[in-house]
Amino acid sequence: MVARISHPYLTVPVQLRRSSATSSSPPPAPSSLRRVTKPAKLSFKTAAAGSAASADGGAAGGQGPAMDFPYLSPAHRDLMLDLLSDTESRLGPHLLPSSVPPDVLSFQSDSGNCKGSLDIRHGADGSKRCSSFLTGDGIFYFLSAGGFDPAVVAALRAALRVLDITTLFAYLRPESDAPHLLVEFIQNGPDSLVLFIDLLPRRDLVLHADYLDHFYQQSSLEKTRQGLESAAEVAPYRSSSLYIRSVLSPTAIAVGINCGAEGARPLEELMRELVAGAAKEVIGVWLDRCALAEREVTEGDRTGLVARDDLIKRKTVEIDLSANLPRLFGQQVASRVVGAIQKAFGI
Amino acid sequence: MVARISHPYLTVPVQLRRSSATSSSPPPAPSSLRRVTKPAKLSFKTAAAGSAASADGGAAGGQGPAMDFPYLSPAHRDLMLDLLSDTESRLGPHLLPSSVPPDVLSFQSDSGNCKGSLDIRHGADGSKRCSSFLTGDGIFYFLSAGGFDPAVVAALRAALRVLDITTLFAYLRPESDAPHLLVEFIQNGPDSLVLFIDLLPRRDLVLHADYLDHFYQQSSLEKTRQGLESAAEVAPYRSSSLYIRSVLSPTAIAVGINCGAEGARPLEELMRELVAGAAKEVIGVWLDRCALAEREVTEGDRTGLVARDDLIKRKTVEIDLSANLPRLFGQQVASRVVGAIQKAFGI
Repeated sequence: MVARISHPYLTVPVQLRRSSATSSSPPPAPSSLRRVTKPAKLSFKTAAAGSAASADGGAAGGQGPAMDFPYLSPAHRDLMLDLLSDTESRLGPHLLPSSVPPDVLSFQSDSGNCKGSLDIRHGADGSKRCSSFLTGDGIFYFLSAGGFDPAVVAALRAALRVLDITTLFAYLRPESDAPHLLVEFIQNGPDSLVLFIDLLPRRDLVLHADYLDHFYQQSSLEKTRQGLESAAEVAPYRSSSLYIRSVLSPTAIAVGINCGAEGARPLEELMRELVAGAAKEVIGVWLDRCALAEREVTEGDRTGLVARDDLIKRKTVEIDLSANLPRLFGQQVASRVVGAIQKAFGI
Repeated sequence: MVARISHPYLTVPVQLRRSSATSSSPPPAPSSLRRVTKPAKLSFKTAAAGSAASADGGAAGGQGPAMDFPYLSPAHRDLMLDLLSDTESRLGPHLLPSSVPPDVLSFQSDSGNCKGSLDIRHGADGSKRCSSFLTGDGIFYFLSAGGFDPAVVAALRAALRVLDITTLFAYLRPESDAPHLLVEFIQNGPDSLVLFIDLLPRRDLVLHADYLDHFYQQSSLEKTRQGLESAAEVAPYRSSSLYIRSVLSPTAIAVGINCGAEGARPLEELMRELVAGAAKEVIGVWLDRCALAEREVTEGDRTGLVARDDLIKRKTVEIDLSANLPRLFGQQVASRVVGAIQKAFGI
């Protein structure tokens, strides 16, 4: 049985092979693969920065996200935790604690083939900055058979793992018109990855040349994009969704990384040595120029911004989630997860 | 001496070599290279369609453009004439005759190194369709030495020809919000070409998903782009100008064609067999869905469209012409040509 995910960031729909041996009551996932909801003590900070979390969970601005990306490879997980740590340490005072219920923070399909996790943190009251800060991680396995040695099951799961999506969205409030942040890693094989990192424009760049100049021309974003694309294993990548192409900025990192060819560096090495640097640079620009900088927005402008932001959010949910989650996780789980995001977005 | 053109559609500025033998009073160009202003009898139709122009120049809708692209290679010239013929035969009733003075229809630098031609036709009064229809052709030679055998001069000119730009813009009136047409060929060597063909969106596609759907999703534009890019000699191309990247649609053909590698087809062959088909398909979509289709635009919408259109026109002139023409043609010629375009654009 074959399921197809038409993920908007992928040009070619990914074929998800579903084992014919799927049982109606799958065994529980091995503990190493099970989603463990951590107490909100910034465990990710411990992993990322190598420092022990304080016993009372006292990070700047309150508790951090519980997300610890349990489904990722070590280098990928280290990178995501590092990015979150960087971002959270500077945005902390502007963020409220994690606000999603446990069954959204960690969810899975009835068969256990698909697992996901989602964390959302809202901007603190009175903060003009962050509206919402979403991190998510999903992995889609397509083996559900019992009676095997756990090590064999783990190996088979790894071999059959075909799609793993890790996302970090940060939306700003209409008190600022600065771009939103998008980081999305779509790993579709052990040697290949599709990567989107961008500051999503919140104004029509054709009409607002000063906005284009300030955020994109005068920053280091284009240099970062060019640097990443200069690697032999990296090539430009075009989303199959025309809407996604329209939403991205002209300096968007939208690349495919393929480490399968002879002489290519391993994906883990590229993640550490190339991707990590590029992602940190873009997030650095976003923190400095967008999230933590003042912008003047008139009352009239604000209405237009809200309308445009709402459309981006609605389309993100529609294209990215509503189209795929029910097929992967079943209607009940999908409704719960999409509902949590819609509530966070206020749409 | 090296002059640099930072053409907005080129990522790397083209280096224009200027011979140190440049004389202050260059000889006239050989007749084969001289711009001949044809009587407005749709001579291009003869060349394109193989049919004789009528003696009285009676084409549908009046006289056609005098443009005959004197500086192009045969296959390139045939293609441009063919595209113009297709377009003009269907738009004819909506277009006024050519409206530019002879010293804009054909112009050159004092040294004779750079030659250009520009034709502009306005939409007919009462026609809701075309606002202005521009075709241009420029070639930049960098040899000006006397005393040689004319054949040697011609060979040297050909060898030193480093940049040849052919453009076709068609702007629609604000009675319609349908996309404008852009066709631009930038030949920067005997084996290489950069090509932009697009229907330029006139609305913010993030806000107007129905517009994106109608013109880009429901048409064949994406299929045409993919077909062109599937050729081994063709690769995606990114403009160095972030503004140009922002103006282009998500289905824009923006490619580099390189026929210099072993086994690659000659550029002339690709022009005939691949590029011509793609260009005709896009222009066909533009004619059917944009130039000759009705669109409902409210009075309020129209004001916004005019503002956005004016910005696109101003930026096109600023980035594409004002930055380069004075250096290539001298201030006097550049002012004349830019002035004619500004007058046509009403900016």
